[in-house]
Amino acid sequence: MDLDKLYSELTVKTEAKLALVVMDGVGDIAIKQHDYMTPLEAARTPNLDLLTRNGAQGRMIPVAPGITPGSGPGHLALFGYDPIQYQVGRGVIEALGLGIDLKAGDVAARANFCTLDNNGIVTDRRAGRIPTEKCEQLCALLSKKISRIDDTQVIIKPGKEHRFVVVFRGKGLEGPLTDADPHKEGLPIPAVEAVDKKSAKAKKVAKLVADFYAQALPIIAKEKPANGFLMRGIAHQPAIPLFQERYGLKAACIAVYPMYKGLAQLVGMSKLEGPQTIAEQFQCYLDCYNDFDFFFIHFKYTDKYGEDGNYEAKKKAVEDFDAALPVFMRKMPEVVAITGDHSTPCPMKGHSWHPQPVLLISSCSGSDKLERFTETGANQGSLGVFEAKYLLRYMQANARMLDKFGA
Amino acid sequence: MDLDKLYSELTVKTEAKLALVVMDGVGDIAIKQHDYMTPLEAARTPNLDLLTRNGAQGRMIPVAPGITPGSGPGHLALFGYDPIQYQVGRGVIEALGLGIDLKAGDVAARANFCTLDNNGIVTDRRAGRIPTEKCEQLCALLSKKISRIDDTQVIIKPGKEHRFVVVFRGKGLEGPLTDADPHKEGLPIPAVEAVDKKSAKAKKVAKLVADFYAQALPIIAKEKPANGFLMRGIAHQPAIPLFQERYGLKAACIAVYPMYKGLAQLVGMSKLEGPQTIAEQFQCYLDCYNDFDFFFIHFKYTDKYGEDGNYEAKKKAVEDFDAALPVFMRKMPEVVAITGDHSTPCPMKGHSWHPQPVLLISSCSGSDKLERFTETGANQGSLGVFEAKYLLRYMQANARMLDKFGA
Repeated sequence: MDLDKLYSELTVKTEAKLALVVMDGVGDIAIKQHDYMTPLEAARTPNLDLLTRNGAQGRMIPVAPGITPGSGPGHLALFGYDPIQYQVGRGVIEALGLGIDLKAGDVAARANFCTLDNNGIVTDRRAGRIPTEKCEQLCALLSKKISRIDDTQVIIKPGKEHRFVVVFRGKGLEGPLTDADPHKEGLPIPAVEAVDKKSAKAKKVAKLVADFYAQALPIIAKEKPANGFLMRGIAHQPAIPLFQERYGLKAACIAVYPMYKGLAQLVGMSKLEGPQTIAEQFQCYLDCYNDFDFFFIHFKYTDKYGEDGNYEAKKKAVEDFDAALPVFMRKMPEVVAITGDHSTPCPMKGHSWHPQPVLLISSCSGSDKLERFTETGANQGSLGVFEAKYLLRYMQANARMLDKFGA
Repeated sequence: MDLDKLYSELTVKTEAKLALVVMDGVGDIAIKQHDYMTPLEAARTPNLDLLTRNGAQGRMIPVAPGITPGSGPGHLALFGYDPIQYQVGRGVIEALGLGIDLKAGDVAARANFCTLDNNGIVTDRRAGRIPTEKCEQLCALLSKKISRIDDTQVIIKPGKEHRFVVVFRGKGLEGPLTDADPHKEGLPIPAVEAVDKKSAKAKKVAKLVADFYAQALPIIAKEKPANGFLMRGIAHQPAIPLFQERYGLKAACIAVYPMYKGLAQLVGMSKLEGPQTIAEQFQCYLDCYNDFDFFFIHFKYTDKYGEDGNYEAKKKAVEDFDAALPVFMRKMPEVVAITGDHSTPCPMKGHSWHPQPVLLISSCSGSDKLERFTETGANQGSLGVFEAKYLLRYMQANARMLDKFGA
């Protein structure tokens, strides 16, 4: 039997408030260089410690053993969706991240300007990382000249540096397509093809992409160094069951960075705009406490400094998070989960597969009798090591939202 | 989506070397009689301790909860194959173990000489464990008289004591078949049948086995005590994706016992012959370091003494293994996993289902800050309890061979 269907059948309505607080990439690994202490272990965290005393800990496999997730699959799992079943193309995530209000059926591509030689060979895949202002100018130029191809609307939106997004909005479109990107210098831009050769809708998109190239390349042909562009991750926004329908919870996203707002939007969460610091985010949670059942609060800096390999800064980010926690704790929801969407170990300077620690607190979480929330503590916690997609089910259970199964 | 397919899509080539070091049956259970210390815990293991400091630990379910594996499924899981999906008949494993170069479609049976009374009743299933020389004589006699049945070649090869193997090589053959073995004394040898009654190929093999009995029994009828034989585990060599294709790793097997060489051969590993002691095996690893990407090193004696229920000898085997480790450690590969293929608890004198401990060491395994590699330590490790078939995926991840999934 489909487990999601079973959960859905068992779901009942309660008055409980739930908060999923994500310290992005918080998980780390202990190495000799740092006296075998992870940033979470080395940080002073009096407020987390306070919460820990009445919480349960565990570690979560973001996707499957050994698989390192991007932010998309990492968050979809935290939202309770199987990240392998619900795959979201890079173009869609980038488009959502740039604040484009994608509609079902829109096909989005991640694009970036590149440098081509006289023979159309890619000589620099990032066009020397042109400044953002230049990218904005080029996108404005392209947008002005190309707004439609046949019956399809074309939306072009600049990102940071050489990056931009192209969205095709029309009837009968779908992805995924192969990349218009040789993935290394010294080769021409390949034509895109439907991954599923039988999909007429994807073939229509392949033709749109070819037409787009035919019209767009001449417009920027004289530019230096950005006289070409690459497109990849071309796919449509998949149909994902909405959060509210799936869990019966009205959900709000309190994030600062666009990508996480985009991911929350993908499952139908309301985006609460404004707050810039984690203290402001927690204040926003307090302010909107009565308006929602579920709060997704996203803290970026643990991941950011992990990506930089900056151990001290990651430790400091944990301490900053902890220092803001008392704002949140003024009004504790019935269920709180504090975790990451994956690990971003400083020694690896990037995302990893290491199961991230999770702390779950409710009146019925039980206490694991651990003094601190850390990777090592999580190893000994009552939740064990489990797939991240089940965290939301544990949160529902702790909210008493899941009825007994069977007699 | 098929998870193996996803892993395959994410696999990239690196220069890393990986070593899977198997202490066969190393896992054990703590009982009062031995002061609640397993052999691994009681043994002096200064070199393992040294490795442990920078490693991650966990426990692995060999097949599924509560299922005790034979060596076949135990090792297939360690090689990263689902042992339920890829089932290999005992006959095939024995044949490979005896060095027969099996071809796809060959049907192999594990056989052993037995004693029959005048009425064809089995009175000793092992014919008093006749010496190996006698077995070799009888097999030579049978081979001389029976080399073909109809269009099928018959290969007979002696093993140790009363054991031998029969391989049918021809067209249109397949298994599995029921055993020509009553599995206890006092009964006649049953005729074999196709397990799948609809398989014409298996029915052909059933007739071959009957014909083989009809021709072979008269040849040895006057022998004492080995005047009969039993056949079991009759099946064909299944199609298993090759290790190199599956992981992009050129693999070598450094084992002493034939069965483990056979299992490695089944997935296409190269067998490095010669070494007899674990120190020699480690030296062989050093000598061939540049020729392969992946090394499977098999140590038998932890299992052997576990099967004997000999606690002191199993503890001593661990210490012998540890004493040889410095040879291996002269050239540490990027990723090492040290584990068993299952547990063989001394009090049980046989294989068991108890999840075996595993120690994983790489520059990004992280340290679980445990002083020793033991069953109790493994319970507290960051890897948790997971299915053994994922160990190879974790090894790939630690070798940085798995790309990020999703954006």
